Amino acid sequence: MSRTRVHNLMVSSDGFAAGGHVTLEQPIGGAEAIFRWFDGRVIHGVHGIDEPVTVDRAMFSMWGQGIGAEIMGRRKYGPQQGESPDDGWQGWWGDAPPFLTPVFILTHHPRPSIEFENGTSFHFVDASPEEALRLAQDAAGGADVRIGGGPSTVRQFLQADLVDFLHLVIVPIVLGSGVRIWDDLPGLQERFDVESVSTSSGVTHQLWNRKR
Amino acid sequence: MSRTRVHNLMVSSDGFAAGGHVTLEQPIGGAEAIFRWFDGRVIHGVHGIDEPVTVDRAMFSMWGQGIGAEIMGRRKYGPQQGESPDDGWQGWWGDAPPFLTPVFILTHHPRPSIEFENGTSFHFVDASPEEALRLAQDAAGGADVRIGGGPSTVRQFLQADLVDFLHLVIVPIVLGSGVRIWDDLPGLQERFDVESVSTSSGVTHQLWNRKR
Repeated sequence: MSRTRVHNLMVSSDGFAAGGHVTLEQPIGGAEAIFRWFDGRVIHGVHGIDEPVTVDRAMFSMWGQGIGAEIMGRRKYGPQQGESPDDGWQGWWGDAPPFLTPVFILTHHPRPSIEFENGTSFHFVDASPEEALRLAQDAAGGADVRIGGGPSTVRQFLQADLVDFLHLVIVPIVLGSGVRIWDDLPGLQERFDVESVSTSSGVTHQLWNRKR
Repeated sequence: MSRTRVHNLMVSSDGFAAGGHVTLEQPIGGAEAIFRWFDGRVIHGVHGIDEPVTVDRAMFSMWGQGIGAEIMGRRKYGPQQGESPDDGWQGWWGDAPPFLTPVFILTHHPRPSIEFENGTSFHFVDASPEEALRLAQDAAGGADVRIGGGPSTVRQFLQADLVDFLHLVIVPIVLGSGVRIWDDLPGLQERFDVESVSTSSGVTHQLWNRKR
């Protein structure tokens, strides 16, 4: 049974999981500090366990395990709005995006798919969460589907009760503004069992498993 | 650079990581309770993340990531002692051992190799830890080598200072007898940085990374 999973969604103490204004210089819209807590890099994908092996990295390494497709929002794909300009933009990730699977990008302005040699492909769909999930599950061939973010997209899938597993990383910083993860989800905990663990880096990992 | 890693080595509160007497009925030599703490099964291998996704399972799932070969002791392979009897024994794991890589089994009584369709192969070598590691690194083709246990084998590699990463799971049970992990390793902590995290199941995961 294919699960729908969210991994490594970093959330500030005040509940923001991205900044408000994505630009070419600010891929997380001004909330880059959430990621830089760790090692200064914005983490786009995680394959295997880096050295040294920390509890944080062990948790992050679940990201790619058993995943057959991803769904992401338009703002994760790029800073453009409206019609796709004919500017050769292929996402932030260069010639070898780290996804290694089909990726379905939710947009009101579809454009032709893009295929990469490493198994990643981008497909642009104007679809509801349910429709997008069906497409992604078909492409995943029985493996799990990852909802890749940003936070607005994750929240849509949570509201539609389509998420089986949610891994949040609560980072002890105060952003003050941005895209909230918790809005319009009152009582979310009633649908999930939650396990938390805090690590020596200061973050708290929360694993939300949908109740059966 | 190929690392030498130990994963999911379960240790009782009193420092035992296996029982003293391995038989066909007792593959862990009477210390099966260490494993049954979790879900009643003796875990031989871990691929991917089970459902529900717990912190323990996330930690266990590092087991196969980036591994190209395993080295194990004779007692992990089977209960026999001395010359290999001609009894068709191929280990505990049936037709599809979970290793999916070459496995080098340390024994003073070598016998012909065994190949399985799923990529696992067993090679029996009468070798020092250093020699076995060289063989395993060649077979791993740049990936990491896992020291698969039992505890006597892990301790040999620790004494020879050949271990880069050690993941211990301290299980809050008292066994009273068995094979100790900590013997003859005074000051081990001076060679490693250690991070610990405890989970809701009651166990503590210790990640030992060799100091650089």
